[in-house]
Amino acid sequence: MIDMDGVIADFEKEFLRRWKKFHPDKPAVEYPDRRGFWLINQYPEEFHEYVKEIYLSPGFYENLPPIEGAIEALREMENISEYNFFICTAPMLPKFENCVLEKYYWVKRYLGDEWIKRLIVTGDKTLVAGDILIDDKTKIKGKITPSWEHVVYDHPYNRDSDSARRLTWKNWREVLMI
Amino acid sequence: MIDMDGVIADFEKEFLRRWKKFHPDKPAVEYPDRRGFWLINQYPEEFHEYVKEIYLSPGFYENLPPIEGAIEALREMENISEYNFFICTAPMLPKFENCVLEKYYWVKRYLGDEWIKRLIVTGDKTLVAGDILIDDKTKIKGKITPSWEHVVYDHPYNRDSDSARRLTWKNWREVLMI
Repeated sequence: MIDMDGVIADFEKEFLRRWKKFHPDKPAVEYPDRRGFWLINQYPEEFHEYVKEIYLSPGFYENLPPIEGAIEALREMENISEYNFFICTAPMLPKFENCVLEKYYWVKRYLGDEWIKRLIVTGDKTLVAGDILIDDKTKIKGKITPSWEHVVYDHPYNRDSDSARRLTWKNWREVLMI
Repeated sequence: MIDMDGVIADFEKEFLRRWKKFHPDKPAVEYPDRRGFWLINQYPEEFHEYVKEIYLSPGFYENLPPIEGAIEALREMENISEYNFFICTAPMLPKFENCVLEKYYWVKRYLGDEWIKRLIVTGDKTLVAGDILIDDKTKIKGKITPSWEHVVYDHPYNRDSDSARRLTWKNWREVLMI
């Protein structure tokens, strides 16, 4: 299973692009300087409403650029019969209004109808069965002990945890041992 | 886990209401006469486009009335600590545009934000772990052998299969042995 934001859809890049565009007067945190999973926490509290405004606005999720190499990797996965591949994504809650539907549009646009069938939207990923979950979040909590092994998609903001194997779209074959 | 359409949201009732309203000149299949899971197959092929028009139109999913007793049952479930309860629903594919987001609105409206966290949207329910799946569809296929026992939510249209235990919101406590 493959997470969406921060693994195949570039949340950080689109946020930063819009942040600089709409708030050129305010300090921006560049990608290599990102620390901690939640982007909002790296901005001063006085800016939090502006930060939320960006990622909750219509069109944000739909217009996330793909992470480099992601679409190509998923296209290759379609031909690997040893695994079943699914996209497993959590909605932004409680403000799901734009995020949920736009995730479907995104998958349709970049991957097509076959991958829409493989899209799972759930707030609790531990409930979804799988061998491996590729996710950029290091702490994935839920109601049960998951069946999957968690492989962390590598970013500057999640290197505080080194307990799991790390994957980028450059080394994914090696990590999945395909 | 609890399915949505035909278990807590009354797809059949709302369809029939709109069918009679928009096509009073055409024959309607009343609920007790419904046979076979797919409603569309009980209408002549020349009417299929009209049937689809109804359930694919904006507002259809959002305005499904709750199935009698469903909301009360789910409210009671909130206080049962022995189980974790989730709603597990498949989107209408490939025409997900109205269905997906409106399912979220429906859950928010009738059950509130706490149940939105428990909403799982997936085309393949076999991948979701659980003890029991309450679903009105008798044949639920997917990539793996599911961990859940399938309990069929009883309707005239799914009585062709008698292999599984049957539940209505009148006997749910008994069936789940709570």
